[in-house]
Amino acid sequence: MEPSKTKLLVNRREKLLGKAYRLFYDKPVHIVRGEGVWLFDSDGNKYLDVYNNVPHVGHCHPRVVEAICSQAQVLNTHTRYLHEGVLDYAEKLTAKFPDGLDIAMFACTGTEANELALRLARAKTGASGMIVTDHAYHGTSWQIAQITTCYQTSEKRGDNIVTVPAPDSFRGLYADDAEAADKYAGHLRIAIEKLARNGHRPAAFIVDTIFSNEGLPTVPPGYLGKAVDIVRQAGGLFIADEVQPGFGRLGTHFWGFDSHGVVPDIATMGKPMGNGYPISALVTTEEVIEAFQQHSHYFNTFAGTPVACAAALAVLDVVERQNLQANALNVGEHLIRGLKNIAENNSLIGDIRGSGLFLGIDIVRDRESREPATAKTNKAVNLLRERGVLINSTGAYDNVLKIRPPLVFSKDNADLLLQKLGEVLNEI
Amino acid sequence: MEPSKTKLLVNRREKLLGKAYRLFYDKPVHIVRGEGVWLFDSDGNKYLDVYNNVPHVGHCHPRVVEAICSQAQVLNTHTRYLHEGVLDYAEKLTAKFPDGLDIAMFACTGTEANELALRLARAKTGASGMIVTDHAYHGTSWQIAQITTCYQTSEKRGDNIVTVPAPDSFRGLYADDAEAADKYAGHLRIAIEKLARNGHRPAAFIVDTIFSNEGLPTVPPGYLGKAVDIVRQAGGLFIADEVQPGFGRLGTHFWGFDSHGVVPDIATMGKPMGNGYPISALVTTEEVIEAFQQHSHYFNTFAGTPVACAAALAVLDVVERQNLQANALNVGEHLIRGLKNIAENNSLIGDIRGSGLFLGIDIVRDRESREPATAKTNKAVNLLRERGVLINSTGAYDNVLKIRPPLVFSKDNADLLLQKLGEVLNEI
Repeated sequence: MEPSKTKLLVNRREKLLGKAYRLFYDKPVHIVRGEGVWLFDSDGNKYLDVYNNVPHVGHCHPRVVEAICSQAQVLNTHTRYLHEGVLDYAEKLTAKFPDGLDIAMFACTGTEANELALRLARAKTGASGMIVTDHAYHGTSWQIAQITTCYQTSEKRGDNIVTVPAPDSFRGLYADDAEAADKYAGHLRIAIEKLARNGHRPAAFIVDTIFSNEGLPTVPPGYLGKAVDIVRQAGGLFIADEVQPGFGRLGTHFWGFDSHGVVPDIATMGKPMGNGYPISALVTTEEVIEAFQQHSHYFNTFAGTPVACAAALAVLDVVERQNLQANALNVGEHLIRGLKNIAENNSLIGDIRGSGLFLGIDIVRDRESREPATAKTNKAVNLLRERGVLINSTGAYDNVLKIRPPLVFSKDNADLLLQKLGEVLNEI
Repeated sequence: MEPSKTKLLVNRREKLLGKAYRLFYDKPVHIVRGEGVWLFDSDGNKYLDVYNNVPHVGHCHPRVVEAICSQAQVLNTHTRYLHEGVLDYAEKLTAKFPDGLDIAMFACTGTEANELALRLARAKTGASGMIVTDHAYHGTSWQIAQITTCYQTSEKRGDNIVTVPAPDSFRGLYADDAEAADKYAGHLRIAIEKLARNGHRPAAFIVDTIFSNEGLPTVPPGYLGKAVDIVRQAGGLFIADEVQPGFGRLGTHFWGFDSHGVVPDIATMGKPMGNGYPISALVTTEEVIEAFQQHSHYFNTFAGTPVACAAALAVLDVVERQNLQANALNVGEHLIRGLKNIAENNSLIGDIRGSGLFLGIDIVRDRESREPATAKTNKAVNLLRERGVLINSTGAYDNVLKIRPPLVFSKDNADLLLQKLGEVLNEI
């Protein structure tokens, strides 16, 4: 698109939506169409989508579109009438969880699912303390913005919220330390003591189980189990935020918590659930929900509606029929091999990590110092955009290229990404 | 449906969703299809929908369904790419507001819109005090559940939240008092003093501008203006929660605040916006948003997407083309005349109030005492359900029949409601 046309749209946007909204890329993209792993701009340019996890089974997957359209023509009411859709979906969803985690509650966004999870945790424990990692993303409401430690916000964090360092094996407090799991987990004790000094007991420890916004660090084996044990001993619950890692993306496991061998008290999920149709949920146990339902009832107008559940059912169905978890594993391994090849001739790649179709490439100034190359990472992101590959960066230093495409990403798609990435990394 | 079949569904639901979920009616309805003002159960029984405001332009309106389907087939990404949909809708939406209220921000639910409004108010004022009416509904997040004073919840209300009595001309502190407007507004001063004793300044006074959950009381003329003046003098903002009254339902005005002659600092909206597709928003001024956007940015994955905005644009379009605001006014007046006729021979009707297609019928034991007839109201609701009319009750005593149908409700529909209601009120 001509720069002047982009500028007109950007100005119109700022006037109508204000300045709190942000756009991706130095030259924002004006997307008009999506199909599978491809996005198309208003000039007909084609982009390989390496970043969007919401279109979990591919942009505009016909099976999901069909499910939405068919149901939208027939009925879309709320959960104060009986309807099989929400029950059929709750049954299929809870079947994906370990025994005991067999109650599903629905909301519309990841923020709302996390809000509800914290309400349950507070009710169950009678406590209000929350422990989060130091560069986490959990959502946008007033309370959740305070536990979203990766952004500066206008809110002062309440003294009921304390942070622990993200368990990073590559960079951070205990990089390359054989006892990193214990040492990182030990920070949960420190956090609980800090909460106590502030007059709070822990209600919950919440983590994104792939630590996506923390830069997808390789977690020291055993860390999460040890951390959760400490929290539970102090009476707190463990909430697994599966909004990003869930639904098979990791290839090895359907849920992120499974990859750590830890069973949560509450799991929350959102983004990929409805392939873009707004639906989110939490899954929990009878024991956890008991206290909440004694004093509160729950209704969320747009949540668990026939259309939302039709979309979500179709997504689960496509994930299974198209073997997308296995595809994530296979293509992910193919990508890792390709990235390792690139790394042999390019010392900007400090670390390659992640699982399935959720990978991080840590870009460094040099491998000795492991110093984050933030500016170069940003340059790579924008050069890739120029060359038809949409990707982005994450992590505390914004130096981790985040690979998180729709799960229909093929080996051919991976090869295209590797080719363009190889070129760009040689230029920055 | 056979009682045994209903029971199976109810049991399955309790097992899968837990007990915090509630169903309407003693005999829950199993709805399978909707069209216009009609809902159909699994046995083919037809119900007149007198209660659902989410299907604003009618259940499964073909124009809205078509907008959702067409767009879902083409693209559904987020607001970090440029897209005309969100701008076209923001332009049309803000054009419906008084000058100055020209910035729109999007979310997915009324709860999220109110959450964002409170974040803006806190950032703008640097204060945290909130003033709400004593039987209000504003949503389900942790913070918003605390300002939702109409439900018992497991949360203790923070000392930054204080309540004022709902401005009821018929029942309550200053019923039939010529100075009710001043006297009710005076409670804002008391609230501000209470906040001060708790160490808080007021950030915002938030009301549903039709006081729906308060029982749709006839508000003493001038009350809201006086109340808002007091709050503004103390540095607080006025948030108009238009989730229920907005989008032409009142017939006389497009927004509830307009009916009070008061311009809000922030207006929030939700339910009817997308005729069931999850979309919500707030509209505010450059001045209000300034402080928030200095320190925070805002992104909500499913909000303001091409599909959400296509649905919302279609709703606005249908409201205009089908003259639904005028229809609300005409049919509402017809209903009020019919209700007055019924009241001539039935002393259970204590008061008829509201505007357009948002009416309340206050059911009393007798007109002298105005004592609320809660049990009889509940009986009427359930008898009407048996006779194919879906309605519900509201208010602090749950004795106000709430008429809030899709805006395509016709005079014929109104006559059917009046007939059934007349019958039922003679039997309870």
